[in-house]
Amino acid sequence: MKSENKHNWRTKLHEIIYEADTPAGKLFDVILLIAILASIILVMLESVSSIDNKYHDLLNNSEWIITVLFSIEYILRIITVNKPIKYITSFYGIIDFLATIPKYLSLIFVGTHALVALRALRLLRVFRILKLARYLGASNQLGNAIKASKAKISVFLFAVLIASIIFGTIMYLVEGAESGFTNIPKSVYWCIVTLTTVGFGDIAPVTPLGQFIAAIIMIMGYGIIAVPTGIVSAEYTKATSTKEKISDEEHEQLKTVVLNSQCCINCLAEKHQDDAIYCHKCGCKLHHD
Amino acid sequence: MKSENKHNWRTKLHEIIYEADTPAGKLFDVILLIAILASIILVMLESVSSIDNKYHDLLNNSEWIITVLFSIEYILRIITVNKPIKYITSFYGIIDFLATIPKYLSLIFVGTHALVALRALRLLRVFRILKLARYLGASNQLGNAIKASKAKISVFLFAVLIASIIFGTIMYLVEGAESGFTNIPKSVYWCIVTLTTVGFGDIAPVTPLGQFIAAIIMIMGYGIIAVPTGIVSAEYTKATSTKEKISDEEHEQLKTVVLNSQCCINCLAEKHQDDAIYCHKCGCKLHHD
Amino acid sequence: MKSENKHNWRTKLHEIIYEADTPAGKLFDVILLIAILASIILVMLESVSSIDNKYHDLLNNSEWIITVLFSIEYILRIITVNKPIKYITSFYGIIDFLATIPKYLSLIFVGTHALVALRALRLLRVFRILKLARYLGASNQLGNAIKASKAKISVFLFAVLIASIIFGTIMYLVEGAESGFTNIPKSVYWCIVTLTTVGFGDIAPVTPLGQFIAAIIMIMGYGIIAVPTGIVSAEYTKATSTKEKISDEEHEQLKTVVLNSQCCINCLAEKHQDDAIYCHKCGCKLHHD
Amino acid sequence: MKSENKHNWRTKLHEIIYEADTPAGKLFDVILLIAILASIILVMLESVSSIDNKYHDLLNNSEWIITVLFSIEYILRIITVNKPIKYITSFYGIIDFLATIPKYLSLIFVGTHALVALRALRLLRVFRILKLARYLGASNQLGNAIKASKAKISVFLFAVLIASIIFGTIMYLVEGAESGFTNIPKSVYWCIVTLTTVGFGDIAPVTPLGQFIAAIIMIMGYGIIAVPTGIVSAEYTKATSTKEKISDEEHEQLKTVVLNSQCCINCLAEKHQDDAIYCHKCGCKLHHD
Repeated sequence: MKSENKHNWRTKLHEIIYEADTPAGKLFDVILLIAILASIILVMLESVSSIDNKYHDLLNNSEWIITVLFSIEYILRIITVNKPIKYITSFYGIIDFLATIPKYLSLIFVGTHALVALRALRLLRVFRILKLARYLGASNQLGNAIKASKAKISVFLFAVLIASIIFGTIMYLVEGAESGFTNIPKSVYWCIVTLTTVGFGDIAPVTPLGQFIAAIIMIMGYGIIAVPTGIVSAEYTKATSTKEKISDEEHEQLKTVVLNSQCCINCLAEKHQDDAIYCHKCGCKLHHD
Repeated sequence: MKSENKHNWRTKLHEIIYEADTPAGKLFDVILLIAILASIILVMLESVSSIDNKYHDLLNNSEWIITVLFSIEYILRIITVNKPIKYITSFYGIIDFLATIPKYLSLIFVGTHALVALRALRLLRVFRILKLARYLGASNQLGNAIKASKAKISVFLFAVLIASIIFGTIMYLVEGAESGFTNIPKSVYWCIVTLTTVGFGDIAPVTPLGQFIAAIIMIMGYGIIAVPTGIVSAEYTKATSTKEKISDEEHEQLKTVVLNSQCCINCLAEKHQDDAIYCHKCGCKLHHD
Repeated sequence: MKSENKHNWRTKLHEIIYEADTPAGKLFDVILLIAILASIILVMLESVSSIDNKYHDLLNNSEWIITVLFSIEYILRIITVNKPIKYITSFYGIIDFLATIPKYLSLIFVGTHALVALRALRLLRVFRILKLARYLGASNQLGNAIKASKAKISVFLFAVLIASIIFGTIMYLVEGAESGFTNIPKSVYWCIVTLTTVGFGDIAPVTPLGQFIAAIIMIMGYGIIAVPTGIVSAEYTKATSTKEKISDEEHEQLKTVVLNSQCCINCLAEKHQDDAIYCHKCGCKLHHD
Repeated sequence: MKSENKHNWRTKLHEIIYEADTPAGKLFDVILLIAILASIILVMLESVSSIDNKYHDLLNNSEWIITVLFSIEYILRIITVNKPIKYITSFYGIIDFLATIPKYLSLIFVGTHALVALRALRLLRVFRILKLARYLGASNQLGNAIKASKAKISVFLFAVLIASIIFGTIMYLVEGAESGFTNIPKSVYWCIVTLTTVGFGDIAPVTPLGQFIAAIIMIMGYGIIAVPTGIVSAEYTKATSTKEKISDEEHEQLKTVVLNSQCCINCLAEKHQDDAIYCHKCGCKLHHD
């Protein structure tokens, strides 16, 4: 009976923590969301020295409270799940763990600045709570379009990188050190800044020839920015239009039918139409479930 | 009789103020448009101190004239409409009210600078006069495309924001205060400036590692700028291709008509227009079901 | 006979000047192209003070030679064409005239700087020689797509402008004069620079609130840059796919026919099929030219 | 026998150098890839004066080792190929040669800085090893789309260039020398920087009129950036949608089949699969023409 009770207790907690269908589950998600956003705001405020000087203790204590909250949540998540190892090693399991430890680590590595990066990773937890992937993933169209475009865009970006290195080297030779192109890595950095149309202007060509080459790079960049956009938009158009077309127009033109995976017991022919009663290869009657 | 007369007077005014089909209605719209644009130019000129010093009285008086005009118009709009409450609480009703009050408020809150923002809102009234929504909304295709894309683009922009916060934190750690990355909010601001390819250059990385990470952020931004564009363009393609296949424009340009499958009993000519009464080949009367 | 001879002479010259099918016509075009490009380079070099100081006489004489050449060409164009008035008042006729006069005008208006703008307009003549419009116009697909998109993109750009004015006013209030936002027109200019992702950085927000609003403007701009691109790309997809579809697939589905503008003398019905012999409304015989 | 043996030796080496199917061939490619990337990193590090001062001998010796490696590889490529002249004059043959000579040339032209540009060209060899063209070229869709768009985008970029020259001249007249628009070539450079939305900010308009024209240029640039993107995306959509309508993937996923218009003589059932021998409704044998 005790085990039963414990099981109920675990099931109920699991429902609250992992699901959002019950009022308690929704409340849990809202509190968690507030805690995460509060922790991100804390990280930001701590980095502003004027605020940190004034309210250091308040910020520090708030961070401790959030850390304790996250720790309890992490432990509860492990307890209430059936396969704790699977959870711990999952993407969100690792993010949850990394969200918990920064403050503990700060006790060991006193003054280690780099822990703020770990704390910023907490933001990734927002994705789980808001179930944002659902918006993108459910229909899977955008995901498919990006997946289909990934290889081509990668090669494309690689080509942009190679162009940046070659043009960066040329700009280094043309401009020289006095206008900021002090070495090739910096020139390549400038070239990427320019090709992506960001254009900081921290480094800018000053010689006529350098400005002429820069103009060519920019017009080139203007032309090639069209390519990845075109790829994604075409792939996405395809992904969204495939289903409709088949079901509507092409149904009559191409005479598309749904085939099931039935296999004729007589001739083992496959790919029968869903409404077929007899095998179209041997004429034998088909068996339905 | 008096009430009749009053009704006529109201109907006529309503026609002038709310419609643009009569000459008086068109004149009213043109005058209103000029008044709005004049009021916007006044706001701008007032903010230029050299002009304001010279012509302060002229600008001030002009603003009073426009305010009085807008006040009269606002009162007339309330009087001539059948459901004044509905108008007052409508979007354009509120805009009309906000367009009227800034100068009156300036009497109460002397020297309150913030009222110029209220006056800039007058620009929204231009939308009503030019009936701009008609261009976008009538066919509703662009509206539908944006509506269909909104959820996906929002999630996408949210992802951009999260990437900005995480990369902003990293850049803050890498670059440090001496190159402008004095705190995380500023770093995040820089990251958004970079990812959106705006690139002011007021803050720019100076360390090799910072420039390397910046290059990655930029190439990433270059790749992901393709996604929202692809979404809108695909949704818009879908929206326009569904309805417009037999659209108004093409109907007249290409003179596409729906032909029925009727067959003339006399000469057996086929492909008659759907509204044809006589056969276009032999002149014999067609029979309808 | 003399008149005949003159006519021949005119016809031949017309062929050389206006067409490019004969060797002489091609040579004429090449020489003209070189003269135009040379004149543009002259304009540019003259503006570089170090070059102008050294080679002023050479540049001046070259400009006179090109001006005389253009003058002769302009006179020949008028002589050899049958309707000179039509040519003179045509787009290219005006451009040809404007290409000729700057140097003559410089004798009258000594030291008038603004004439260089007139000389830069000569570049438009390159379009005629290279017959660039052919590449865009022949298929008319891109032209149709841009025409179809123009109204929507104009409204869109107008909305961007209004957003710029409203956000510009807000930024003027938030940032104030010490960071470059000295007046509203300048703030609006900054807002356009930011929304279009150009981002000069000559003016940049320095207050936290200003940077926050700037970030919102940028993310907004990032989202809306997708719209005009989507419109053009969708319209262009439609424009290129319309013909193929109609001629092939939809021919049978939608039963498209070409209708002429014939009007029945009996019932005045319009929109007859091109191969119709009898009116489809009244059965009366149709008259063909 | 000796010749046979030699032939075998050549064939084997050819397999290793030119192909990547054998373990030795794969190892060769990996080593070559590392050597190329190492040589690029060397070029970059040499240009950083602080690193070059410290490790000059190390960098110099490493460059010699890579040069000797590339020389051996180049000789082996010539020996093992059947038509050496064809290889030497091919694109990759020239790149391989240019990859080999910079260090030798540096012995002749001591201190010639420009040789680093030659060394950067080595990056192009990466394309061969990674067979990147395969990703883009195999399906040929992206290639076709870019090819189909090239003429239109070229004309478009040419139009952008002409607009830059005309607007650049106007800005030169409006702004004058005090704000960086010292001559027309520089103004044109600024105009390209602005139209392509790069926006360095090294030159920026300061006069109200100049900023007004700049705003027009930017909004124009914002509108026209949509055109090349639209072209590529439409052409790519076309290229991918023509062939892939009955593509391999969809064939298996949606199980699309071509149905013929055969009609069963027994039960009059229609829509049989094209390879059906028996009616799927009644099992009766179908008759073929």
